[in-house]
Amino acid sequence: MNYDSQIDKALDALHSEGRYRVFQDISRINGRFPSANWIDENGDKQQITVWCGNDYLGMGQHPAVIAAMHETLDVAGVGSGGTRNISGNTVYHKALEAELADLHQKEAALLFTSAYNANEATLSALPKLFPGLIILSDALNHASMIEGIRHGNCEKHIFRHNDVAHLRQILETLPANAPKVIAFESLYSMDGDFAPIEEICDLADEFSALTYVDEVHAVGLYGPRGGGVCEQRQILDRVDIFNGTLAKAYGVIGGYIAASTRFVDAIRSYAPGFIFTSSLPPAVAAAAQASVKHLKSDNSLRIQHQEIAAQLKLRFKAMGLPLDDQGSHIVPVHVGDPVKCKMISDRLLKDYGIYVQPINFPTVPRGTERLRFTPSPVHSQEMIDALLTAMDALWSHCELSRLKTSA
Amino acid sequence: MNYDSQIDKALDALHSEGRYRVFQDISRINGRFPSANWIDENGDKQQITVWCGNDYLGMGQHPAVIAAMHETLDVAGVGSGGTRNISGNTVYHKALEAELADLHQKEAALLFTSAYNANEATLSALPKLFPGLIILSDALNHASMIEGIRHGNCEKHIFRHNDVAHLRQILETLPANAPKVIAFESLYSMDGDFAPIEEICDLADEFSALTYVDEVHAVGLYGPRGGGVCEQRQILDRVDIFNGTLAKAYGVIGGYIAASTRFVDAIRSYAPGFIFTSSLPPAVAAAAQASVKHLKSDNSLRIQHQEIAAQLKLRFKAMGLPLDDQGSHIVPVHVGDPVKCKMISDRLLKDYGIYVQPINFPTVPRGTERLRFTPSPVHSQEMIDALLTAMDALWSHCELSRLKTSA
Repeated sequence: MNYDSQIDKALDALHSEGRYRVFQDISRINGRFPSANWIDENGDKQQITVWCGNDYLGMGQHPAVIAAMHETLDVAGVGSGGTRNISGNTVYHKALEAELADLHQKEAALLFTSAYNANEATLSALPKLFPGLIILSDALNHASMIEGIRHGNCEKHIFRHNDVAHLRQILETLPANAPKVIAFESLYSMDGDFAPIEEICDLADEFSALTYVDEVHAVGLYGPRGGGVCEQRQILDRVDIFNGTLAKAYGVIGGYIAASTRFVDAIRSYAPGFIFTSSLPPAVAAAAQASVKHLKSDNSLRIQHQEIAAQLKLRFKAMGLPLDDQGSHIVPVHVGDPVKCKMISDRLLKDYGIYVQPINFPTVPRGTERLRFTPSPVHSQEMIDALLTAMDALWSHCELSRLKTSA
Repeated sequence: MNYDSQIDKALDALHSEGRYRVFQDISRINGRFPSANWIDENGDKQQITVWCGNDYLGMGQHPAVIAAMHETLDVAGVGSGGTRNISGNTVYHKALEAELADLHQKEAALLFTSAYNANEATLSALPKLFPGLIILSDALNHASMIEGIRHGNCEKHIFRHNDVAHLRQILETLPANAPKVIAFESLYSMDGDFAPIEEICDLADEFSALTYVDEVHAVGLYGPRGGGVCEQRQILDRVDIFNGTLAKAYGVIGGYIAASTRFVDAIRSYAPGFIFTSSLPPAVAAAAQASVKHLKSDNSLRIQHQEIAAQLKLRFKAMGLPLDDQGSHIVPVHVGDPVKCKMISDRLLKDYGIYVQPINFPTVPRGTERLRFTPSPVHSQEMIDALLTAMDALWSHCELSRLKTSA
């Protein structure tokens, strides 16, 4: 057996398909987000502007969040000391879970080390709770949901993305008395489009299914208290299980589910991905709680966020750039060519100090390669102007076509 | 469909088997480990001594570790801002990976949010790299390894725990030219016993298999630089892939693998559990690096750790308590009865302020229920004396039998 040559073969496949990922070395500068230091391949450092981060509101540098982390670190030390069951269950974890349950107006919440884990562990445990379970899954669900459903090893059906008619069609073929879970996202991060949540919930009622909604790209950002798209639409009670993250709008790390006490108790008891993992450091839990708490009462960051996203979209459109505007904060500019997409990203970084990661196949379908910008309240007018100027020049340089503008 | 009654059924099963877990609310006190505050069911707080934590050396309160976290927090803010590929790759992550690669004398290392994830993501990705892979797995491997192997969906064979003859027997039945990985732990945490690593590596050589070794309960604790059991035995080069944690001896959080550059590059590129997860906060990475670095040069904590473990085992044995001494730092006292095991644990906590979680089925086989003590350099003589007195009294109270002592 030549293991090395087999690994080389696997890596060569990525190179030849243009899918090999090169990580850029980035270090954010506290107090000056979205500015960061970038270390290039020669080891030279230069200051850049991050336009593809997931800390959507800059909460990772919020004084209240940083203070909570400093304070708890001094009080409790670094690690938690164990799994939740074996000495790693602290008042900080419980307080954060209570904060999150309240956010989604559910009885309980359960913390995981990431939202990926929360999805994987919860979805894969469902068939243990509901023998004979059938999961209905949106075609564009996140990798963590796909993996969780796969690992649970139960019957599953994929419905076309956001296609309620197709979902109904599938539901009608299934045995009426089988337990069913419909799993989808409220806001899809690659296109920035929203799910028809109410209509899916109507179907769930009609066919007696549970609803599992991933609000990872919406919590903190939508709804009067940051409870996500479902809070904004006042339909929190129509969803059975929420999944959310503390790593994006809340600027920290970790993930969770929020649901009934009974459901959370069962996942806590049955999901190996929860049971056998050390809990988050108390200082991380405290920082996350401070962030969630702050964004429950402070609406200004959410408003600025939407304003800046709207402005950016408007100006890209005025330049004739092909932009799929779905009304969310996510700004995907379609390049439609993997080589040019990568080239624009490289030039933006090297020539303009602007960092946006190219999104190519397999993250998105071939032919829909894009640059996905994530504007935030910490992006200044000057930064937006600089981005527009750079994109205008590179778009022309790459001879990419423009749409007729309505202006 | 009555989903609630199905969940109740799943929970009732745990209650009736005595497997329902109640989490104790514990908060460690920085600077005074292993002392912690315990909040009882009435909300009353009392100070206790933790005897079942996984922060084996108390590094979670080490000044160098705490200082690194404070400093990086001020420089870089809280969260990383994204996945490793999308804006979340920092100098802190890279420095920690270099530190870990050096620890295991491998070319490269790769960070995950936990060692559970590192095992799950790596083992489940192996069949993508090696088509036709066969995994040979020790019967007592950790849940995260079992799940990872299961999710990879390749051919697998379980060999009896630490049974090299059985492993050989299985290897002899397998096609010579099929890729094979032997996955095991260097030190098993429930019994505290070591694997026959050299003999397994001999078999791997003979049958041309790769070796995957989980050193989660050994890194930081064994070997002149804390490189684990394989460093102690000077056989680092005989293992292809190491798995380790930053949450136990290093007192922080996170997990990793260490292997060849080529292998790490492939896992980085093929494991969804790595690709689609936000990276650890820079301050967490910096704290972990400070801890790994410190324990590379400071042998005193490791020596004290072993001395205190040896003393505790000796004194338990002198009292006639049934103790399975495997020469490691883990001290499992066998109660052999789930009700009495839980009762002693409850009484220790309530009457003596001593916290040790009972270990019952399914974590260990029925009839081998135990109390698993994790002594550390931060446990004082007074704490050890108090534990011995309490155990002596409760052992008699529960009418548990004692072994004849050699004294």
